[in-house]
Amino acid sequence: MGTAMAANLAASGQRVIAYVRRPDQIGRLEALGLTPTTDIGDLLDCKVVISMLPDDAAVRDIVFGSGDIGFRGLAAGLTPGAIHLSMSTISTAAASLLASEHERSGQGYVAAPVFGNPDAAKARQLFIVAAGVLADVDRCRPLLDCLGQKTFVIGTDPQHANLVKLLGNMMSATALEMMGEAVAVVRKRGLDPRSFVEIMTGTMFGGRAHKIYGDKIARQSYAAGFVLPLVLKDVRLALAEAENAGVPMPSVSVVRDRLITGIARGHGDLDWTALALIAGEESGLCPTPSVNSTEV
Amino acid sequence: MGTAMAANLAASGQRVIAYVRRPDQIGRLEALGLTPTTDIGDLLDCKVVISMLPDDAAVRDIVFGSGDIGFRGLAAGLTPGAIHLSMSTISTAAASLLASEHERSGQGYVAAPVFGNPDAAKARQLFIVAAGVLADVDRCRPLLDCLGQKTFVIGTDPQHANLVKLLGNMMSATALEMMGEAVAVVRKRGLDPRSFVEIMTGTMFGGRAHKIYGDKIARQSYAAGFVLPLVLKDVRLALAEAENAGVPMPSVSVVRDRLITGIARGHGDLDWTALALIAGEESGLCPTPSVNSTEV
Repeated sequence: MGTAMAANLAASGQRVIAYVRRPDQIGRLEALGLTPTTDIGDLLDCKVVISMLPDDAAVRDIVFGSGDIGFRGLAAGLTPGAIHLSMSTISTAAASLLASEHERSGQGYVAAPVFGNPDAAKARQLFIVAAGVLADVDRCRPLLDCLGQKTFVIGTDPQHANLVKLLGNMMSATALEMMGEAVAVVRKRGLDPRSFVEIMTGTMFGGRAHKIYGDKIARQSYAAGFVLPLVLKDVRLALAEAENAGVPMPSVSVVRDRLITGIARGHGDLDWTALALIAGEESGLCPTPSVNSTEV
Repeated sequence: MGTAMAANLAASGQRVIAYVRRPDQIGRLEALGLTPTTDIGDLLDCKVVISMLPDDAAVRDIVFGSGDIGFRGLAAGLTPGAIHLSMSTISTAAASLLASEHERSGQGYVAAPVFGNPDAAKARQLFIVAAGVLADVDRCRPLLDCLGQKTFVIGTDPQHANLVKLLGNMMSATALEMMGEAVAVVRKRGLDPRSFVEIMTGTMFGGRAHKIYGDKIARQSYAAGFVLPLVLKDVRLALAEAENAGVPMPSVSVVRDRLITGIARGHGDLDWTALALIAGEESGLCPTPSVNSTEV
């Protein structure tokens, strides 16, 4: 995801220093017009540092520094006035903590998580939900415009962008679960799943989530994508947000259990469309050969 | 629903005899260009009889006759070659039974349930899913074209149209449940539900279901509409179809329990957007004054 986004920034004329852990990636990144480095300290002179990382811990390590990467952290190292543009899907608590730490160091922190998969990132079709001090958001705007098709600014408190992103992912996850359940019925009744999905997306469910994932579910295409353990991480974060807010989310709890089942059965390297595979398995439908294909 | 559809047929130049139980409705139906009657026997010379009724029992009564309405039934009374165009949301078992009975009498039976609410019916924005003997479907086509914006023909077995319709309604019901859960979190965290719904429908969930119902949920507009007991009826039918097919539908089971709760609390006259009211109540949010408004 991050690579596709960085390549789009470079293609638009920005100078992009790309931090990478593995030296064997350097050639590939150079070919994309990036300036790769394995020394994270090389980022400290940047005006804007973009992070796109898998979880809270990874972003905290980058901001506070970590023995592992021998780095004192962005908050201690960035020049005052620089901005950390944080595009990872993380908890609202982490977002607030990171924002405070940067503020203490005189830096900006803009939360800007995205909706969309790596294909969407490549095609600049991402949707971005941004929040932060408005002047900081404005300074990031030209970068955001290079990365996605639209940016929604929902306020000045960074954590709100992360909350919206987590809830949006739950809407996708429950939509996938429901399509999986419905397609299991359709398949067991001998109807064509593609016709069913076409009718759904041609009538009441014509949005991107149902179109993109519905087509994959109809074709039993479960190759990653957004792998189940990362989906479960988001579900865990969303349920924690909901618990803190005093809101039960029984629909999301259903998805949580299905993901745990799927991972326990060895499907952890499949895309979240595999919720339909799990729904099928729970209905006595056997996995099909296309499960392990590399088709995306 | 039926009235709006009949009025559209009349407006397109069809002669429409409208059976109505209550004589006090006659003036209203005449004003719409219909020929109303309180004698169901007056329908027996029609080439096509359209039924749009609340449940299996009501449609069975019309086809097999019922002491209640002192009527020998469409199957016994329609002329051979006539078609019963059955647009109700009913079970697949009922659809198959009715189709056999009409076939035995030399009549056609076309299942053509619809997606859309009374507003959509009025505006001819319904989506229709049709199945039946293809020659019969073709004969109904001009009528269907007057009633909706698009007809999907999914095969020759009438029950398949009903299965698709029931599963589609479950997709809507679970979408409403999820939006209700998410909006409860949003409200409790002090964010604006309208902004949240705008972002969702502006990104991954731009289809009709999320747009139409999301807006109502954001505005806490729960006036009927599609009242909870009728939704529960569809949920019951869908879960029975799923059980017969050997498919658990845990997402739908969540909605079932929420509907039972809502009806038990006295919300049975509200629209299915009230799944969001129930999600709010389960989160300690009190009902708001707009709950009992007549706004649709």
